[in-house]
Amino acid sequence: MDKGQTWRQRLYIIIFETSTPAAQRFDNWLLVTILASLVVVMLDSVEHFHNQYAEVFRALEWFFTVLFAIEYGLRLYISPKPMRYAFSFFGLVDLLAVLPAILALMFADAQYLMIVRAIRLIRVFRVLKLRQYLSQANFLLVALRGSKQKIIVFLVSVSTLVTVYGALMYVIEGPANGFTSIPISIYWAVVTLTTVGFGDITPQTPIGQMLATLVMITGYSIIAVPTGIFTAELANAMRLEGQMEHDCPHCKKPRHEHNASYCNRCGGPLYSRAPQALQRGDTD
Amino acid sequence: MDKGQTWRQRLYIIIFETSTPAAQRFDNWLLVTILASLVVVMLDSVEHFHNQYAEVFRALEWFFTVLFAIEYGLRLYISPKPMRYAFSFFGLVDLLAVLPAILALMFADAQYLMIVRAIRLIRVFRVLKLRQYLSQANFLLVALRGSKQKIIVFLVSVSTLVTVYGALMYVIEGPANGFTSIPISIYWAVVTLTTVGFGDITPQTPIGQMLATLVMITGYSIIAVPTGIFTAELANAMRLEGQMEHDCPHCKKPRHEHNASYCNRCGGPLYSRAPQALQRGDTD
Amino acid sequence: MDKGQTWRQRLYIIIFETSTPAAQRFDNWLLVTILASLVVVMLDSVEHFHNQYAEVFRALEWFFTVLFAIEYGLRLYISPKPMRYAFSFFGLVDLLAVLPAILALMFADAQYLMIVRAIRLIRVFRVLKLRQYLSQANFLLVALRGSKQKIIVFLVSVSTLVTVYGALMYVIEGPANGFTSIPISIYWAVVTLTTVGFGDITPQTPIGQMLATLVMITGYSIIAVPTGIFTAELANAMRLEGQMEHDCPHCKKPRHEHNASYCNRCGGPLYSRAPQALQRGDTD
Amino acid sequence: MDKGQTWRQRLYIIIFETSTPAAQRFDNWLLVTILASLVVVMLDSVEHFHNQYAEVFRALEWFFTVLFAIEYGLRLYISPKPMRYAFSFFGLVDLLAVLPAILALMFADAQYLMIVRAIRLIRVFRVLKLRQYLSQANFLLVALRGSKQKIIVFLVSVSTLVTVYGALMYVIEGPANGFTSIPISIYWAVVTLTTVGFGDITPQTPIGQMLATLVMITGYSIIAVPTGIFTAELANAMRLEGQMEHDCPHCKKPRHEHNASYCNRCGGPLYSRAPQALQRGDTD
Repeated sequence: MDKGQTWRQRLYIIIFETSTPAAQRFDNWLLVTILASLVVVMLDSVEHFHNQYAEVFRALEWFFTVLFAIEYGLRLYISPKPMRYAFSFFGLVDLLAVLPAILALMFADAQYLMIVRAIRLIRVFRVLKLRQYLSQANFLLVALRGSKQKIIVFLVSVSTLVTVYGALMYVIEGPANGFTSIPISIYWAVVTLTTVGFGDITPQTPIGQMLATLVMITGYSIIAVPTGIFTAELANAMRLEGQMEHDCPHCKKPRHEHNASYCNRCGGPLYSRAPQALQRGDTD
Repeated sequence: MDKGQTWRQRLYIIIFETSTPAAQRFDNWLLVTILASLVVVMLDSVEHFHNQYAEVFRALEWFFTVLFAIEYGLRLYISPKPMRYAFSFFGLVDLLAVLPAILALMFADAQYLMIVRAIRLIRVFRVLKLRQYLSQANFLLVALRGSKQKIIVFLVSVSTLVTVYGALMYVIEGPANGFTSIPISIYWAVVTLTTVGFGDITPQTPIGQMLATLVMITGYSIIAVPTGIFTAELANAMRLEGQMEHDCPHCKKPRHEHNASYCNRCGGPLYSRAPQALQRGDTD
Repeated sequence: MDKGQTWRQRLYIIIFETSTPAAQRFDNWLLVTILASLVVVMLDSVEHFHNQYAEVFRALEWFFTVLFAIEYGLRLYISPKPMRYAFSFFGLVDLLAVLPAILALMFADAQYLMIVRAIRLIRVFRVLKLRQYLSQANFLLVALRGSKQKIIVFLVSVSTLVTVYGALMYVIEGPANGFTSIPISIYWAVVTLTTVGFGDITPQTPIGQMLATLVMITGYSIIAVPTGIFTAELANAMRLEGQMEHDCPHCKKPRHEHNASYCNRCGGPLYSRAPQALQRGDTD
Repeated sequence: MDKGQTWRQRLYIIIFETSTPAAQRFDNWLLVTILASLVVVMLDSVEHFHNQYAEVFRALEWFFTVLFAIEYGLRLYISPKPMRYAFSFFGLVDLLAVLPAILALMFADAQYLMIVRAIRLIRVFRVLKLRQYLSQANFLLVALRGSKQKIIVFLVSVSTLVTVYGALMYVIEGPANGFTSIPISIYWAVVTLTTVGFGDITPQTPIGQMLATLVMITGYSIIAVPTGIFTAELANAMRLEGQMEHDCPHCKKPRHEHNASYCNRCGGPLYSRAPQALQRGDTD
């Protein structure tokens, strides 16, 4: 019984942690398996390969699905709090890798859903010195969250702009020139404003081309807005991170270099020192 | 009479403010109605739907127009200073939502003008914790206003560039390759410089392609200019906002740079230092 | 004779300066004339208008050319140092507005050169409160000059990248898929790297599409480089401008707020004061 | 013998250094030769020229190859540590310029590999005041290296996004609308997300166009991420480079923040203050 417990604990470390070589090997193999499973789904979608190897792909998809199902079961079984795992972010992603696969093997049309396994690829961060990378991802998220309100203001403005531009183009160009409805015209406005420019719909009348010029200049200019917001926010986050948060007891200056002993604004000591330090006299 | 007054005041709060639950519910419903009215105009522009439901759409457009007209009338009636509301930004936007609709229902071709109702969607900021978002929008506006002159310099330079590039392409490629006139060539130059690149007109001669390469590199590089301007301006605004509030103990100057040790108006120290720092004999 | 001198001086002020209302009126009319002349050249290039109004346009082009020639002659005659004006930037631009026009009226094909008059449009900065705008343009130029070396490094790297990518695509896709030669393939690489994406040439083979993916991701990512360089340089320039350059006589801190009397780093006075100021005792 | 040694040393300076006029002339001619050789390879790929001058190009390619081979041999012979040169970055690039050329003249299809000579163009930095430019390149590399982790997080996220978007588009649009397989759909997603937008494949169904709108907005917004990362990193590098060198008079700590008044290691004041500041009696 005691030994079984140990076996389960060892498995827990291999599957859920990254500290031991065995655990790292497990993570590596998992990634390779996920990638292989994605490649199979992708190749299966290419007609040329599908015609030749449909059976092989079908078998491989079954194989990977069973593998992921076993893995999911093991995780549930080994986890000390199975329900907490099942409803965690990674738990749901792991389930997503199995569920649609089962559906897909029953209904041919659901097969594509297996591509959601791609989301499991974010496990790659576990393989590449986990903590460092997650802290960087966190960094980006902090910057994004800090600018959330500005981004909403930006997106609402862009949506309004695109709707008005689209409707105007519909009126000016009309169905004869490919602007067959207001939704299509709004789609065109997005294509143009984001500087993607597919070229499947293009203005043909002089007035339409003048308005399109305006849309393009707008899009070219306001791309500065999300970039500016994010850059300023990120620069802020990086500046703050480089310094230690510790209020100076004398002047309350909130941030200091990591190795600072004294506040460089008021000259007072940052930490109450032991008596002998006070008596040193600082006369070197 | 007194009670009528109260009823009007309560309505005023519901329609013009956002502080009470009733007022928030009103704003929510207003947004939903605006969105619904936009959807109707959009769907009506899709030929497939128009053929089937022209009558329904016509009725709904009447319905929404009457609704917005009633709302506009109420706002005018309830506002303590009706003229001030009528000529305020929101007042004009609200009128725009009604006027063209009436025109549109009389002249079939004016129907599209109803899409200007989209501008009313900026009311969404009232629904999402108003003040916060408006202050953010204000932030962006300050940054934009601060860089107004730089942006004008930039736009004039780009316009000149585009005109010269366009004329050169017209000369080099000529009508045979799609550059049918100088205005069209300028339109092409804008499409290319902004990196939109529809591809409806493309250079065919080697020299034209070399010049196009130059246009593209120019466009790819100078997108840095509006971005740089806006980012620097925004970073500046964020830095200034964070300037430290600390009264100088000698002359009471209220604001100082973050790292200031001494007041730069009277020269007095901003912070009293800890005793041992004073005893160290700062007289070297 | 004395009066003639005055007349010449008055004309000098009107034509070369912007301080008097008459001078401003002159600049405004000059801009309008330049714009009108550009519009004529543009319209003349549109086949539809050319067929109908060829004679009118020809006459107008003569008219504007004579006008600009008279203006150029006047400037030369009135300028105290004619040669210096003739070889100044604006002098050459003014000459460019006349010379090609004369050529163009003799050789029909040289007509397009008249569009170089567009360069004269930068005179618009003279009309819009000259000095402010020129200082802003100067600002941008300083930022660009500060990052000149970084930009050359960037452009050389991009050129090498584009050449190698282009040659690879030529090898992979070949003439059958539109990549008819290495120069054309390099042109395609520029179109793709700058995210313009005309779509006149597109990869058809799987390997070509994979390489194209790499080119696009590269282009999407390295646009950060010019933007980053310019933004950092501009932010630097703006930060410096906001402060006064004046070495503190005690600690040599080089920059202070504009209204600073004392250094906020060492507390010493920034300027040697009159004796009574020293005796004041600063004991408020 | 002694004289031969001198001859070798002189040649070493000419070929490997840039300090003497002769060495600079050598570098200039080398660049011109490399460019000429690239032009020959490019022109040879243009069918029109190939048909007419195949023999000339072939001869020139032999000529340049022999030239570069001689140069490579000389470098090996003259270098005091030949093996170290041979395996240095520039040594390998120099070899690359010869090796494929020999292959190419034997196998006609390998001819294109000669374009890798383009990499030799980075020698241009040697010609343009070497050190300055290399330090700038170093600057950019430091900024890129500093943001390596953030960039990996970004690229992994984008890859996942593109895979999921691509698979969804394959399901929604299907082979009938040009999305013939998942890999092709992923290729389309990259084309769209990077705002390149070739337009060879475009969504045709309303749902597909809505999803495409989402992809475009995503791409338009997240371009802010690499730009923000790089800009913040570069601004940081520029800020650190400018940290103040000033020995603390008490503990000799050599570097301090720009605005530091007191040493943050020993708490002593960094600058002696002017007398009146001291007399003011900082003991409030």
